[in-house]
Amino acid sequence: MNALDHLIEALRRLPGVGQKSAQRMAYHLLQHDRAGADALARALQEAARHVRHCERCHTFSETALCKICQDTKRDARLLCVVESPADQAAMERTASYHGYYFVLQGRLSPLDGISTREIGVAPLLERATDGQVEEVILATSFTAEGEATAHVLAEALKARGLRSTRLARGVPVGSELEYVDLGTIAHALVDRRPS
Amino acid sequence: MNALDHLIEALRRLPGVGQKSAQRMAYHLLQHDRAGADALARALQEAARHVRHCERCHTFSETALCKICQDTKRDARLLCVVESPADQAAMERTASYHGYYFVLQGRLSPLDGISTREIGVAPLLERATDGQVEEVILATSFTAEGEATAHVLAEALKARGLRSTRLARGVPVGSELEYVDLGTIAHALVDRRPS
Repeated sequence: MNALDHLIEALRRLPGVGQKSAQRMAYHLLQHDRAGADALARALQEAARHVRHCERCHTFSETALCKICQDTKRDARLLCVVESPADQAAMERTASYHGYYFVLQGRLSPLDGISTREIGVAPLLERATDGQVEEVILATSFTAEGEATAHVLAEALKARGLRSTRLARGVPVGSELEYVDLGTIAHALVDRRPS
Repeated sequence: MNALDHLIEALRRLPGVGQKSAQRMAYHLLQHDRAGADALARALQEAARHVRHCERCHTFSETALCKICQDTKRDARLLCVVESPADQAAMERTASYHGYYFVLQGRLSPLDGISTREIGVAPLLERATDGQVEEVILATSFTAEGEATAHVLAEALKARGLRSTRLARGVPVGSELEYVDLGTIAHALVDRRPS
């Protein structure tokens, strides 16, 4: 296999990139943007070298403790559990949460052999029982696997005397009821609140 | 800017990759596939180091002459002009062409400052006038810019006494007339052939 085919194969490992896109990317880099190929190679190596996980919350960090865990002004009574650094970033962009985080390594998926051990439930329980945390907000996905993960975590937290909450399910902001799926409307009805 | 942001920025230079995809790719590589990040970095460097252009047809090649130009069994009377190595690869996959190729560096686009010099018309004319080529098949795109490129090349080849042809325009194989755009049907009608 030649260098071009090797490059196409390596690009295919990126999520969402198939044979055609990988080929287009490789041709583009070699034909029009060799500086970009070089920049990407170096960025990959730098990131792999420097980016590790925060010792306390397990998000990506270039230091032992990430910026959020270092921030002493946050509310230590709140701990938000998310499935990935990307989910944490989304939460942060809302600018409406001021507690700390714990980033799981994904969500439970017994069929794929991903159990509580793989996603790091034990470190979460240790973190949550530091004596300061009063409420654990379970912000895993609203998919079957995310819900199962939240359920398992809620039980484990309850057994340790910790209160856990879940993000509200409901109609997305800006959407017309006509186009919202029925399951979501049903949930929004059950969880209705005083106006 | 930290290593993670650098990586996201470098990934955004890939064609068809926006902020969201770049972020997803970076998170995926760092969280689940560090070996993939490493493989991609090395493949990029290897490709940038070894892949250059064939001296004769200008396609990607790791040797001075590409495999096709080295193949003496091909029909030296035919020269097919394409816009990119990707287009050449598509032609090859049809397995219905047995002549040689000439790969342009894109197509004419005066508004973007891409003239006959940038796409390499002079080397093409030199290649086409080797005394063996009898027919130049212009396989540039059927877009305004591709058509303009084909027109300019046809004129230049004609001035040198060379015959040029263009790929047939018509209804794509497997399509129902009802769903084919009108311009294509009109061309297919003009270029109709005995059944």
